[in-house]
Amino acid sequence: MITKMRESVREILGQGAELIDHALDRLLPSAEQAPISIHRAMRHSVFAGGKRLRPVLCMETARMIVGSGQVPQGVEELGAAIEMLHTYSLIHDDLPALDNDDLRRGKPTCHVVFGEAIAILAGDALQTQAYEVLARLQCPAPQTVEIVRSIAQATGSVEGMIAGQVMDLEAEEHEPTAELVEAIHRAKTGALIRVSLVSGGIYSGGSAADIERLREFGRKAGLAFQIIDDVLDVTQNSTQLGKTAGKDVASEKATWPAVYGVEQSVKDAERLVDEAFAQLTVYGERADRLKAVARYLVERTH
Amino acid sequence: MITKMRESVREILGQGAELIDHALDRLLPSAEQAPISIHRAMRHSVFAGGKRLRPVLCMETARMIVGSGQVPQGVEELGAAIEMLHTYSLIHDDLPALDNDDLRRGKPTCHVVFGEAIAILAGDALQTQAYEVLARLQCPAPQTVEIVRSIAQATGSVEGMIAGQVMDLEAEEHEPTAELVEAIHRAKTGALIRVSLVSGGIYSGGSAADIERLREFGRKAGLAFQIIDDVLDVTQNSTQLGKTAGKDVASEKATWPAVYGVEQSVKDAERLVDEAFAQLTVYGERADRLKAVARYLVERTH
Repeated sequence: MITKMRESVREILGQGAELIDHALDRLLPSAEQAPISIHRAMRHSVFAGGKRLRPVLCMETARMIVGSGQVPQGVEELGAAIEMLHTYSLIHDDLPALDNDDLRRGKPTCHVVFGEAIAILAGDALQTQAYEVLARLQCPAPQTVEIVRSIAQATGSVEGMIAGQVMDLEAEEHEPTAELVEAIHRAKTGALIRVSLVSGGIYSGGSAADIERLREFGRKAGLAFQIIDDVLDVTQNSTQLGKTAGKDVASEKATWPAVYGVEQSVKDAERLVDEAFAQLTVYGERADRLKAVARYLVERTH
Repeated sequence: MITKMRESVREILGQGAELIDHALDRLLPSAEQAPISIHRAMRHSVFAGGKRLRPVLCMETARMIVGSGQVPQGVEELGAAIEMLHTYSLIHDDLPALDNDDLRRGKPTCHVVFGEAIAILAGDALQTQAYEVLARLQCPAPQTVEIVRSIAQATGSVEGMIAGQVMDLEAEEHEPTAELVEAIHRAKTGALIRVSLVSGGIYSGGSAADIERLREFGRKAGLAFQIIDDVLDVTQNSTQLGKTAGKDVASEKATWPAVYGVEQSVKDAERLVDEAFAQLTVYGERADRLKAVARYLVERTH
């Protein structure tokens, strides 16, 4: 039974990733588009083997809300925009002035291949391109505006992704506390995962109650996801991880296992996923695919 | 008469800048908002003495299109978003990996004061915040979506600001040609000036014909503006300029005077402004304020 579930999750993820990869290829400037160096750099990082987890969460949420079993037309473009924002944050995070990482998903990082100047601009351009894609979404303008606002907030400096990156930088100078680690996680990774769900709900015409449930689901599932990321950094080597392992410990990052230990961290992640699932009860079987993906995220080994 | 015009331009610019400064202060996270380092960095660069030329162009365009003599309600928020985008590009342009500039508008640049990591993230966050502000504009959703799309395009990697920055980087390795210089200028500075006008037109409900005229006006005025910037870099010292003078020559940047000489450059800028003004004939006296600002831009000494 577990084997069968696993199989089906891999199918959901595989089909989703394929749809997103096609959308990304269509929505990014081609590698021959002048000025070519930046477009090659953007594509290098976007097509470096990401699993498209956020876009898949977005699409599966939209499918659940619509309820017909189909995803709403064009939702993969929203997913692609979210993946561009995720990739921009990785490129900038990897820069020498920030995490100084040479390896990401088993491949040399953007600045290693294209130099720092182009890497900075490629990150900038992926953020810009994401908003251009959002402004061309195939949904009514009021929903597009709400999606732009939600995404900007979720990636911003007050409670979003950038806030998390800054807190993370500042935390290196302090002993990590439970509160700090949770605040960093909620902002740095949690906010983008949360908005992947919420924006999928807005795109598919979800009610205010739907959006609120998705926000709460995302709050818990996003935290679980980041806890597992922290655990993997401790328990796996660089080859398994596709990036430099043990970096969090080496740089004294504020992580969940650093505060609670590995065993408790895994338990916390599992408990959070169960709590998250309670939000989806109202959707019955329609939530099965989304739940399977969320479950996979906390059971993955890399 | 010329003195009187000058006086009145300074009033237009002064009043406009005050309105924009208030809007920026209201729309940016406060300096006490956690995480404070990034919000201080954002404010450091935003409030480093910019003249708010792009927002003033935007607001005066909106006033001209509306035709009542008043600016439309809330247009200063659009102007503020444009200024955030302009500032983000300056912060990243000044980084050691790019232009490596320590001085901007007579003040130490963002990375000099706050370090490279925070400067990169502050630039990122200003871009993000700009889109959040755009998504809250006080105009109908379809216009907001059109503004977001226009601005993303104007600041993007294909024909916008980032494309110009990349071409500029790449040009340092080549002898500058007239075509290359014009292409860089159109993208690097021209596109944001053009969209300042165009988005002001969209915000105020301008017709397709209005938008087309504004685009053409902006195309010519924007190029003139950048030519004068290049000239000032050659003819002024660092104190007059408020930034490191002669940097373009030292780094063999592709500039208008490098191709045509200073005298011809000034003539070209003046001719372009005259051609730009021809687009505004249809608006009669309603265009006077906008024309005064544009004229000022090519007659300024710093």
